[in-house]
Amino acid sequence: MKLVTFTHKNSDPKLGIFNNDTVLDLEAFGHKHNEEFPTTMLELIDKGLEEVSRIAEIVKTSSENAIASASLPLNEIKLLAPIPKPRKNIIGIGLNYTEHVAESARTLDTSKELPQQPVIFSKPPTAVIGTGEAILHNTKLTQQLDWEVELAVIISKKGKYVAKENAMNYVFGYTVINDISARDCRRAGQWIVSKGQDTFAPMGPILVTKDEIENPHNLNLSLTVNGVEKQNSNTKYMLFNIPDLIEDLSTVFTLEAGDIIATGTPAGVGAGRNPQEWMWDGDVVEATVEGIGTLVNTIKKIQ
Amino acid sequence: MKLVTFTHKNSDPKLGIFNNDTVLDLEAFGHKHNEEFPTTMLELIDKGLEEVSRIAEIVKTSSENAIASASLPLNEIKLLAPIPKPRKNIIGIGLNYTEHVAESARTLDTSKELPQQPVIFSKPPTAVIGTGEAILHNTKLTQQLDWEVELAVIISKKGKYVAKENAMNYVFGYTVINDISARDCRRAGQWIVSKGQDTFAPMGPILVTKDEIENPHNLNLSLTVNGVEKQNSNTKYMLFNIPDLIEDLSTVFTLEAGDIIATGTPAGVGAGRNPQEWMWDGDVVEATVEGIGTLVNTIKKIQ
Repeated sequence: MKLVTFTHKNSDPKLGIFNNDTVLDLEAFGHKHNEEFPTTMLELIDKGLEEVSRIAEIVKTSSENAIASASLPLNEIKLLAPIPKPRKNIIGIGLNYTEHVAESARTLDTSKELPQQPVIFSKPPTAVIGTGEAILHNTKLTQQLDWEVELAVIISKKGKYVAKENAMNYVFGYTVINDISARDCRRAGQWIVSKGQDTFAPMGPILVTKDEIENPHNLNLSLTVNGVEKQNSNTKYMLFNIPDLIEDLSTVFTLEAGDIIATGTPAGVGAGRNPQEWMWDGDVVEATVEGIGTLVNTIKKIQ
Repeated sequence: MKLVTFTHKNSDPKLGIFNNDTVLDLEAFGHKHNEEFPTTMLELIDKGLEEVSRIAEIVKTSSENAIASASLPLNEIKLLAPIPKPRKNIIGIGLNYTEHVAESARTLDTSKELPQQPVIFSKPPTAVIGTGEAILHNTKLTQQLDWEVELAVIISKKGKYVAKENAMNYVFGYTVINDISARDCRRAGQWIVSKGQDTFAPMGPILVTKDEIENPHNLNLSLTVNGVEKQNSNTKYMLFNIPDLIEDLSTVFTLEAGDIIATGTPAGVGAGRNPQEWMWDGDVVEATVEGIGTLVNTIKKIQ
């Protein structure tokens, strides 16, 4: 199922099913069927993939007319991040593609050795924005605003000491995150100021449930700035794949329903180019992951 | 006001006022007065310090009998962390006391120069425990389990670009955090695995509202392990004081009601000793901040 969080005419955020040029408003659709559907993405995740199946079944057996009358044209709604307000910081994975490890070592302060364990950092909930929203560039804080397209994994349920073999049972679905990074904002080596500023976690445009992605380790991911391709790789090149990450993360932390793991970016970031490239006011950055979609954001200078 | 979150006979977490050997159960007290009081600490923080004043006034004008009949003896309840489930990761400040910067540079991988800006990291909500709960030591992950007593500041309301002069208006109150740190778990220099493991954020025993602390920059803070003093300093030695931190943090992130800032630890951590000292199964660590109280936790080996 392709899920979205959206607003319609200044409504509160609503949960919907994405159908390319329309969105099925699950609240309106529920009313027609005397069904109570979850009203937020986190509520749906808490209910689990069984609830997704139940909704899918009701949609499947509905008349075209019932669906059409609860649907809104895409151009009349505003998409938000699929999870506009996560319950904890997004879990970020650094240095998870070989060529990106190499480019980072050349131009940033990281090691050229491949990491032996996942490198973990975080981005607070206040960093999250949706597609179409502006990435705010505070030029007093940074002159090195960079991009990072990533596949993000949404966790379905609580887990501790999850074995790799069992890890995919903890996945609810996937979305795209552009892990915006201000390279000159590291402090004593810590990345959170670099990666955690307001608007630095564009997420979306939609959340695709696990069943719709045949193999999450074979998805093209790419990124353009003003239409020029900067990153183009495939999730098969991850150093630590999704089960590796879930096993490792759940050894350290208790994973919970709704947790978001940004699985790292491939080569082609601005910091790794010669000469280095950064984003500035008005630049349009588009981050795409195959099977999910394209997240489009514009840089806006705020001071 | 001295506030606690507690359970009584397997109840859900409840909000109470701490009176040394008793706790006033705000829900039961509200029933007697036909008042609806907040039921969680976060709900109270959202309502703000005005709500604290309103409750204080009702308590003040209540009969001794009315208070006694809604109170529970301390030994019949279990204190939880004041905010058992924060809405985002705790914001940690590193290297915020001069002598601790020096000891860290001697034995860890940090610079001996004083930081020019606050050093920021995070601890996820899953790390939070209360006084009396066990700090779980996974010996497969770490052989260097360390302590760090800290004054924690609780934010009262949303704020962005808060000026120092105005910063104390964004403080709701204070508590104690023991910033448990597994020194051998840094990854590519990032501290979240070191500091973010389950149970690595003991917090409490109580939350003291701002009005009860005359000067948060003149509080003794100390820590013992098995009764032996390891840390003993004063918050007046912070490099970046609370207004500095709020100004800086709110420039980077939007601060929100209920945010928790752990303001850094003074010298005396295990990593800085010669020879180095770590905590092991059965060790009892007590972290005290003047005017707030003592947080007592025991180390428990889990594997």
